[in-house]
Formats: sequence, C-alpha cells, structure tokens
Amino acid sequence: MPPRPVDVPALVSAAREGKPRAVARLISLVEDAHPALREVMAALAPHTGTAYVIGITGSPGVGKSTSTNALVAAFRARGKRVGILAVDPSSPFSGGALLGDRVRMQDHALDPEVYIRSMASRGHLGGLSWTTPQAIRVLDAAGCEVVLVETVGVGQSEVEIAGLADTTIVLLAPGMGDGIQAAKAGILEIGDVFVVNKADRDGADATVRDLRHMISLGDRTEPGLWRPPVVKTVAARGEGVADVMEALDKHQGWLDSSGTLQQRRLKRAADEIEAIALAALRARMGDLRAGHGLDDHAAAVVAGQIDPYAAADDIVAQLR
Amino acid sequence: MPPRPVDVPALVSAAREGKPRAVARLISLVEDAHPALREVMAALAPHTGTAYVIGITGSPGVGKSTSTNALVAAFRARGKRVGILAVDPSSPFSGGALLGDRVRMQDHALDPEVYIRSMASRGHLGGLSWTTPQAIRVLDAAGCEVVLVETVGVGQSEVEIAGLADTTIVLLAPGMGDGIQAAKAGILEIGDVFVVNKADRDGADATVRDLRHMISLGDRTEPGLWRPPVVKTVAARGEGVADVMEALDKHQGWLDSSGTLQQRRLKRAADEIEAIALAALRARMGDLRAGHGLDDHAAAVVAGQIDPYAAADDIVAQLR
Repeated sequence: MPPRPVDVPALVSAAREGKPRAVARLISLVEDAHPALREVMAALAPHTGTAYVIGITGSPGVGKSTSTNALVAAFRARGKRVGILAVDPSSPFSGGALLGDRVRMQDHALDPEVYIRSMASRGHLGGLSWTTPQAIRVLDAAGCEVVLVETVGVGQSEVEIAGLADTTIVLLAPGMGDGIQAAKAGILEIGDVFVVNKADRDGADATVRDLRHMISLGDRTEPGLWRPPVVKTVAARGEGVADVMEALDKHQGWLDSSGTLQQRRLKRAADEIEAIALAALRARMGDLRAGHGLDDHAAAVVAGQIDPYAAADDIVAQLR
Repeated sequence: MPPRPVDVPALVSAAREGKPRAVARLISLVEDAHPALREVMAALAPHTGTAYVIGITGSPGVGKSTSTNALVAAFRARGKRVGILAVDPSSPFSGGALLGDRVRMQDHALDPEVYIRSMASRGHLGGLSWTTPQAIRVLDAAGCEVVLVETVGVGQSEVEIAGLADTTIVLLAPGMGDGIQAAKAGILEIGDVFVVNKADRDGADATVRDLRHMISLGDRTEPGLWRPPVVKTVAARGEGVADVMEALDKHQGWLDSSGTLQQRRLKRAADEIEAIALAALRARMGDLRAGHGLDDHAAAVVAGQIDPYAAADDIVAQLR
C-alpha cells in the first residue's frame, strides 16, 4: 500500500501555528520515514534553531518522568512552550499519539502549550541518532522554546542523548548511582547537570559527595570549562526544582558565552548529515543489489576476471 | 611511519609457487589493510576460484583443533595442498606467523604442503567478513585445493563462517549441544555436515538422535535440498574421520550438481564487494569530515539555510 499523500505546505503551516494534530502527524512522518520527509525537512529548516534542547537520562526508577513533569511545570510558569520526547530505547514500537501519554504526564496533557510524544528509538531505520533529531526539529519549528528529551540510561542511549542535547541532565537516586558507578557507566563525561533525586532518602548526601569528588577528579575542572553542578531534588514534591532551573540557566549562559552551544549544534548537524548520507548510500547499494549491478560484478569476481576492490570501485562509481 | 614498500609481482609469484614466507606476508598485508592490498588482490584474482572452502565451527571444548587436524591428515593422504585459517573472534590480536601454530597443529607444522595461520577477526577494519575472505583468496591463489576455516562458535561468528564457506561443518559433543540447543543457537540452519565428536562419551547417541530429529523438522528435508548428515567421531583417535570425508565428498558433489556452489560463491563475492564499497564510502566521508566539506554543511543546517537531507545529498555528490 503506497503511503497516504501529504499536503506538506499545509501541514507545516499548521504545525507552525502550533496545531497539535499537525505536529503529531509530522513526527509520525519522521517515525515512518515517509517519502514526504525530505520536503517536510526542507520546509521546516528556516524555522528551526531556536529551541533549547535538554536531555534527561538516568536508570529506571530514579524518577525521570516525575522530574520531567516538574521541569515542564517550571518552564510553563515562565510562559515557555514546551515539547517532550520520551524515547524508549528498548521498545520496538512507537508510542503513539501526541497528547496521548496522559498517565505519565497527566499534569500537562491538556495544556495546549505542551507537546508530549513517546517514541521508540529502535525503528527500522536505526536508533536515537536518526529519528530523534528530526522530531526535535519538528517541535523546534512548531515554536517549542524548550524541548525535553527523556530517555532511560541503558547501554549507549545516554551517550547518544548527550550528542543530541544542548544540556544533558543526569538523574541519579541515593544508593543507585554513587560516584564510582557513575564513572564506570561513563556518565561523568556526559552530564552537564547532575541531579540526585529522592534526596529525602538515606544516602543522598553521600551520593552527592561521591559525585562531586569524582567530578573534581575529571578534566572538566580546568579554567573555562564547565564544572557540572550536583543538585538535590525531591521531584515528587517539587523540592529542589528551582535549583535545577538555576543550574540550567547557568549552563545555558555558559553554552552561549563560551561558544560551546554553536560547537555542539554544528557537531550535531554534521552527525545528522553523515547518518542521512550513509543511509542514502546504503539504500542505493541495496537497489544495485536488487537489480543486477552487484550480481554481474560478483560473477566477474568469482570467475577471477576482476578483484573485489576493482568491483567495489565500479559499484561506488555507479552510486552517483 | 609509512608502511614498508612491497614488491607485489615478486610476492604474488613466490606465493603462487607455494613459498610459505610469501603466503604469510600476503596474509599479513590483508590483516594490516596494507595500501598494497588492492594491487595484491588484482594480481591474485586470475588465480583464484579453485579452492574448496570448508568452515568448521563449534563451542569451545568440542574438539575443533583435533578434528581439523584429523581432516588435514585425511586431505593430505589424498595429496591435496591444504590451507588452514584459525579465526579467533574474541582476540584483538592477530595470531602471528604461518607455520607458527605448532602446538595446535603439530602433526602438520613441518609439512610444506600445509599452510596454517591464526587470525584475529576483530581487526581495525571489522570482523570475519572483511579479512577472512581475502586470506582465503591468498591461500586459494597459492594453490591450496582445500581451505579449512576454523572458528569458535560464539555470537555471530558461526553465521559469518557459513557465509564464507562452501561447506560448513558444525561440531558438537555429547551433552554440550542437543538438538533443541542447536535449534536455539541457529546452527541447524548453517550446518551442512554435523559432527558429534567425543562419541565415546555417554549421551552421544542421544545427541545424534536429537539432531537428526530437529533436522527432520526443518525445511531442508524437501526434495532436492541437502539433508545434513550427522556423523559420529572420536577425532583424537581418528575414528569416524572417513565418514566425515565421505559426507564432505557428497556435499561437494551436491553443491556442484545443484548449482548451489556457484550461488554461494556469487553471494559471497557480492557481500565482499559491498563491504569494501561501504568501507570506501565511509573512509571518504571521514576525509570530508576531516576537511571542511561537512562542517560547512553543518553550519548551513544550524543556520536553517538548508535541511539535513539536502546537505546529505551534496555530501553524497562530493563523494564521487
């Protein structure tokens, strides 16, 4: 069945006006790798680049949804339009409709200035690195001044999220992630702001101390480099959220003044371009294979008429 | 330090005469991804395509080296020149010199008609799929009528070996791999000949029965398809080796008469070409990134002047 045709200009225009259904449809096009996606991205491009992208990662059980919820409330109190992408790296399914994740984000589900979307990262086109930046682009163009990308810290996803975000918040809970564990997991390198949630539990101060100690040992304490703060919260009661907001403000200021924001965004764009280019090349290689270009070369290699390098050169030339 | 220059015509000519040092040096060039490799492969191409490639895989402890040893003796008794590649997928190091693996293959280490080489599969250019086919090509051109590729059945390596070999032998031992375990591990699909080694141990007959039962449930029992035999051996005493040789002869005959040999070799060549082409494209992408081609595009994307798809198109065009 061919994909449903899309009136891209109308859809983009509706999304720019903030119409939730249009935003939802555009993110679905991203998830489905719809043929209209190129046209969509071309139409969105001039309207992107203003959103402040915050990544939130942490192990299961540290209170990511609750913390995200609390941050959304804080940004809403400042009058910001907020987009939320909840990326589940373990799920092979996409999570469904915008405004649909009412259970997890019930405080904001009916707020027209909040866009909530669950996404699977393991789509047919690969991980976080492919679909998430495009979904961010959609929310950015839809006028979201803040985009929160929440993902479970499993495997590589937390490193990937740090590559996508302007600021990465690493959430921990007492006893779950002390400093050495954090160092082992590699999160000391990716966190811009560390938040020890559930700080009313035993061991919270020890976790904070451990983290600060490990951070002090890292190379991020050189002059001019950002020294990640460690903030305590009890997100379920809203405690410490103002401190997190202050840390985010400071980090955003540092990103701007140090030129790091532009550096990170350039790197992110380069990664995205590279991923798309490689996917395009792979797809063309697949077309060649489905046709007879590669088969003929394989036959010549088997017959000893050419070597595989010369055959590969020809194939690369045909990709033009 | 630039790589040592190579006199490719002299080396290829010496390897074709069967000089072990020349063969060893060519395989080292493969492992090192030496710049002269393209020239080497072009010079070897007309002399390849005659070797019968046998893959041998199985879990640690089933007796792979002993079985390989016994098969080498059997092929030597037929007067065949034999090449052996022992691929260790877990080792980051290459195993060293031809004729060097005397402990494992001591029966044949001094036989001038036997070439033994240990290889690491996890080189800087990736797995089995990259270096092993080229090493096979070297041994093929050096006049080896039989090339045995031995690898531990861990993770994907046994599936990869099946993609490289004309005939794949799956080794099991009693109690280590019953039929259901084999089915789970996916080896029922890849084995052309199943060998239950250490058949003097308890449970050998049960393992054979289980395997035969599982094979009878598979789709390989349709008319015209190869039905993998299950053979018992005690390789350490040479028992059953003649039966394995008979099974190999039958499979080789079937490969020929059914056209499967050509099909497998075509697919193998196509895979190899594709891997080389993708590696070349990636390398060129890296060059672009190291230069400024990608950076300029990234800046334009960040500024909203173009979208990442259009940027990727330009990058792909520049790869020509």
